[in-house]
Amino acid sequence: MKFHLRLSDIAAIIGASIEGDAGLIVTGVAPLEHARSSDISFLARREFVPYAERTSAGAVITAPELAHHLPHTVHRLLHSAPEHAVADLLDYLVASSKVEGGAIHHTASIAPSSTLAKSVRVAAGVVIGEHCRIGEDVEIGINAVIEDNVTIGERTVIGAGAIVCRDCIVGADCRVGPGAVIGSEGFGYLEMKDGSYRRLHHVGNVAIEDGVDVGANTCIDRALLGSTIIKRGVKIDNLVHIAHNVVIGENSALAAQAGIAGSTVVGQRNRIGGQAGLTGHTVTCDDVIIGAQAGVSKSITEPGQYSGTPAQELSRRLRSEAALRRLVELLPLLETLLQKSVPKQTDQLRDEQD
Amino acid sequence: MKFHLRLSDIAAIIGASIEGDAGLIVTGVAPLEHARSSDISFLARREFVPYAERTSAGAVITAPELAHHLPHTVHRLLHSAPEHAVADLLDYLVASSKVEGGAIHHTASIAPSSTLAKSVRVAAGVVIGEHCRIGEDVEIGINAVIEDNVTIGERTVIGAGAIVCRDCIVGADCRVGPGAVIGSEGFGYLEMKDGSYRRLHHVGNVAIEDGVDVGANTCIDRALLGSTIIKRGVKIDNLVHIAHNVVIGENSALAAQAGIAGSTVVGQRNRIGGQAGLTGHTVTCDDVIIGAQAGVSKSITEPGQYSGTPAQELSRRLRSEAALRRLVELLPLLETLLQKSVPKQTDQLRDEQD
Amino acid sequence: MKFHLRLSDIAAIIGASIEGDAGLIVTGVAPLEHARSSDISFLARREFVPYAERTSAGAVITAPELAHHLPHTVHRLLHSAPEHAVADLLDYLVASSKVEGGAIHHTASIAPSSTLAKSVRVAAGVVIGEHCRIGEDVEIGINAVIEDNVTIGERTVIGAGAIVCRDCIVGADCRVGPGAVIGSEGFGYLEMKDGSYRRLHHVGNVAIEDGVDVGANTCIDRALLGSTIIKRGVKIDNLVHIAHNVVIGENSALAAQAGIAGSTVVGQRNRIGGQAGLTGHTVTCDDVIIGAQAGVSKSITEPGQYSGTPAQELSRRLRSEAALRRLVELLPLLETLLQKSVPKQTDQLRDEQD
Repeated sequence: MKFHLRLSDIAAIIGASIEGDAGLIVTGVAPLEHARSSDISFLARREFVPYAERTSAGAVITAPELAHHLPHTVHRLLHSAPEHAVADLLDYLVASSKVEGGAIHHTASIAPSSTLAKSVRVAAGVVIGEHCRIGEDVEIGINAVIEDNVTIGERTVIGAGAIVCRDCIVGADCRVGPGAVIGSEGFGYLEMKDGSYRRLHHVGNVAIEDGVDVGANTCIDRALLGSTIIKRGVKIDNLVHIAHNVVIGENSALAAQAGIAGSTVVGQRNRIGGQAGLTGHTVTCDDVIIGAQAGVSKSITEPGQYSGTPAQELSRRLRSEAALRRLVELLPLLETLLQKSVPKQTDQLRDEQD
Repeated sequence: MKFHLRLSDIAAIIGASIEGDAGLIVTGVAPLEHARSSDISFLARREFVPYAERTSAGAVITAPELAHHLPHTVHRLLHSAPEHAVADLLDYLVASSKVEGGAIHHTASIAPSSTLAKSVRVAAGVVIGEHCRIGEDVEIGINAVIEDNVTIGERTVIGAGAIVCRDCIVGADCRVGPGAVIGSEGFGYLEMKDGSYRRLHHVGNVAIEDGVDVGANTCIDRALLGSTIIKRGVKIDNLVHIAHNVVIGENSALAAQAGIAGSTVVGQRNRIGGQAGLTGHTVTCDDVIIGAQAGVSKSITEPGQYSGTPAQELSRRLRSEAALRRLVELLPLLETLLQKSVPKQTDQLRDEQD
Repeated sequence: MKFHLRLSDIAAIIGASIEGDAGLIVTGVAPLEHARSSDISFLARREFVPYAERTSAGAVITAPELAHHLPHTVHRLLHSAPEHAVADLLDYLVASSKVEGGAIHHTASIAPSSTLAKSVRVAAGVVIGEHCRIGEDVEIGINAVIEDNVTIGERTVIGAGAIVCRDCIVGADCRVGPGAVIGSEGFGYLEMKDGSYRRLHHVGNVAIEDGVDVGANTCIDRALLGSTIIKRGVKIDNLVHIAHNVVIGENSALAAQAGIAGSTVVGQRNRIGGQAGLTGHTVTCDDVIIGAQAGVSKSITEPGQYSGTPAQELSRRLRSEAALRRLVELLPLLETLLQKSVPKQTDQLRDEQD
């Protein structure tokens, strides 16, 4: 991303004070270790001080208390919350690179019964089915698919190749990643006597509230009846699976490759680690943190940190791991002791095991 | 999904007896807790009785022995197997919402050497390569890709954006989910002396038999030579990985995010839990249940339940978990006991660990 | 894949000596157990001897020391490295099935500001954005998406439906699988006081060096600033997640469904097993082997094999598993012993646990 801004412009955008040359021209933004003299970078946390000390960046956004770690040649923008200042700058850069005004690529195919607001941008190869309603400032990426009867709220961005299946609802200010699938058929069957499965047609939908992010190639299945619900502010990473009839509570975050089985209800502000899994028909309360790769097989009723498979409260799990490590050390002594105290029974036990 | 049916119509469709007003008009189907007076719902299992007692549904499909849990105002359709009755109703609703007759969207691109039955429906943006054969009543969703030399059997539904690669075969009555990839290149390489890898071009295919479901964004790799085979009736959930030369036995079911490594052979009627993994070149016998997140690193030769990493027979795993929990409790006593009986050796051991 | 070659042709292609009829016509290549008399097969490893002894193949590529296991009727091509000989044959077959010369399907949509080499092949439904540069002999599969400002090196193959997002770089001789996403938004947020998340726009890119393979539906996120880097010769399987700002070292291989969290740096020649996960901000040194489903939560500084969650050096893990198995056997004796030696404390402990 290339741009052309004076340091004073950036200071105004992010609300920072300048220590250095307000007229300095900046044309790129880069990490401390790769930044050149035409780039701006940022130093927000103490662990990056080693990179800051050797940076070649022309300018750096930082907090007043970290500024002294920068080389003297570096111009500074001082801000009490440098991460938010960087977020402001990135927001500005992305907003200014956006093309304004509605546009529909001539290769897009839009059913006449659908209603698009004037400012909607539809990229090449997009197909929009019947009876859809697309709000103002929505962007739909290349080759994305919007099936029949879909509603998409204002300012939402649908990534290239993403698929929103029939009847689904995506709120305002959402971001659906490239290749994501919203509203695939739920994995629900009736088992027959001969061991085969009978399909259950899922006629529900997926309802995504406002401000939700869905990562690349993530799949959210439609409900059998009713809705699979992703509540306001939820953030979902790549390759996550969310099954039919699940509910994800407000402002919860799911890291990549996590999986939530059918009808499970996740509380508010949960954080679910990468590759973690929740069994079907479980419930988690608000403010639960589930570690990466954890396997949750029972409902969680107390806020806290949980990890492991089967998942348990973090301190219990750590105690359990420590006990196992100690057992490895103690085992030879233990064998000796048991041999002494009950030699005959031990031998008998061993025979039974052979 | 909206419709307009009399209770007597529904009773006829599902073969139920009516307790209530046969002329009642029903326009939607919804879960007990969200159903309104114009909706029909169902009560099939005892654990949903609490929802049934408070439902606002106009009518409910249920079993005779569960009917008394419903409010008096609710009209009932009584059926000895209410889940199957619901499946029948959903089949009917989906079938009646289908547009009859073949149709090829004008934006689809179909190679002239391919043969499509008259009733095939091809959506917008679909591309079908050379020498394909597509059977009667097949539906191909928006922007789906059918590469060269693919065969698809009757009544199969290919989801939006799904990709069936060259030479692959999909049977009759299958369902390939949105974004699924059938026939991607196998992950097979020769390791070279310098640590780099030489590609092996995989020239085999994927052969999917009849009645198979493949979930959204699931990937099934082609064989190096010969076929990766998915047998009749297999059900595969979202984001599953099936590697080159794997065979999945009839009526097995694989939950979301499961992974099967190269050349593994899964028996009939296996159930593989979510996020479970099977190492390459292993074999499972018929009627094996593998728990969620299990890691199977050896062949399984006895029917039964297996879980954990490395996977073991369920009762062994539970015993093992119980033993570890007990160890955490006993460890302080054990330390004391060992300290008393063999203090010097313990100290020595500890020194060595430091 | 069908062809028509004399045994002498194949011998010349792979540099083998013939034992049998040099004029034999071969029209297919198949595994030993499925090969027919018109097929060629191969026997490279001793464990496949049982299949070799009963093969119906017309000809078999094998090593001199394995040839005697074949039926007398089978013609042989002898080669000291039969796997490489097969790789040569497959290379030849794939190369000869390729259509030569550049071609752009009339349904493709290519922005006029992009530059394509003459020999580029662009399939139906492909969209290429503004300011892209596509090298000689690149193939872009059906409905693939190349967003603005992307560079793709010579001879690289982009699979059907794959998506290369804006600003990303793919080197020469790479293979991007069907449905893969290169350059999706990173999963990075600022947590707000009310528990909601503020998005960080990721303005970096993904830079893939030469000779890299990316599997089907795999996702590689763009960097916040700078680049997510996949170095020369890396092989990545299906459904893998690689987060923002990750670096994967040369010739490392990642099996299916592995996940690498943000800013982690993987060394050279690492092998990461299926469904394994690496936490964010960790580092692995060169020549590390990480087992399937392992969970790496700390940096690894010594080459070797690691497995389990949390991952530990393989021999430690095996010792730990053995100790736990032994504990299950010893526990009854241990309980008896502890009961005898310190009965009162045990009782007290139990009370506290209740």
